[in-house]
Amino acid sequence: MHYKVTGEMVTLVPEMRFNCSVWYNNHHFIGRCLRGGQMIPELKYNEQGLIPAIIQDINGNDVLMLGYMNRASLERTIETGKTCFWSRSRQEFWTKGETSGNSQLVKEILYDCDQDTLLIKVEQKGSGACHTGNRTCFYRRIETAGKRESG
Amino acid sequence: MHYKVTGEMVTLVPEMRFNCSVWYNNHHFIGRCLRGGQMIPELKYNEQGLIPAIIQDINGNDVLMLGYMNRASLERTIETGKTCFWSRSRQEFWTKGETSGNSQLVKEILYDCDQDTLLIKVEQKGSGACHTGNRTCFYRRIETAGKRESG
Repeated sequence: MHYKVTGEMVTLVPEMRFNCSVWYNNHHFIGRCLRGGQMIPELKYNEQGLIPAIIQDINGNDVLMLGYMNRASLERTIETGKTCFWSRSRQEFWTKGETSGNSQLVKEILYDCDQDTLLIKVEQKGSGACHTGNRTCFYRRIETAGKRESG
Repeated sequence: MHYKVTGEMVTLVPEMRFNCSVWYNNHHFIGRCLRGGQMIPELKYNEQGLIPAIIQDINGNDVLMLGYMNRASLERTIETGKTCFWSRSRQEFWTKGETSGNSQLVKEILYDCDQDTLLIKVEQKGSGACHTGNRTCFYRRIETAGKRESG
């Protein structure tokens, strides 16, 4: 097998063939290989085949948005270096910034302990992530003042 | 009506009665009122009645985890000042840190442009958010090195 396991990390050699499954000791499924040798670990997609992806600005660490990816849009994200989501309403790929220019350049992709959520750190181009013109989609706050008095 | 609308913010007076709906100009639904006068804006819950909540450490801005809330657990979160999720597997409320002591004290609750995702900034108590002992649930990375050569 053309891979090395180092702690939690798996490094694949570039000649690893596309789309093969990677197994460790013949029984523990690790993931699937992409073109160029990167590997997507085993992830849990929901009943619609989607996984939520939290997008965080690598400069300043603001959370910019939450999008949904399917297996194919995650592969596109990795292969192109730009975030690509799956639009549930339009049922199509949606590469962020394709029309607006507000692309997100992928710097790091993390996944959580349950393997059902992604955290993608990006360099946000243009004016921001939100279609409203705000830099982040999270620009409104739920008022919780007065909580202490009631409690 | 006992509320003031200031830009995007709605401030309710404390005598606002519990669980009433708040309408603006008699046709635009704004949200529902909780005990003590806080207001939950109109939010979109999925077909299971859930909304994803990104939990971010207010000290350092690390993303700690993603959990799911229903309307009732969000109300508990606001009223108690500690994050409370809805466990899909156990079908019960799950107040973070109840058994481990790793509570999350709520500092700010934001919601996104589509009103279908929450971002909750917390002070993380104890060793961290993750059941593995890691501070954040996002402690593993997808290896994307070599991407540039392949593109």
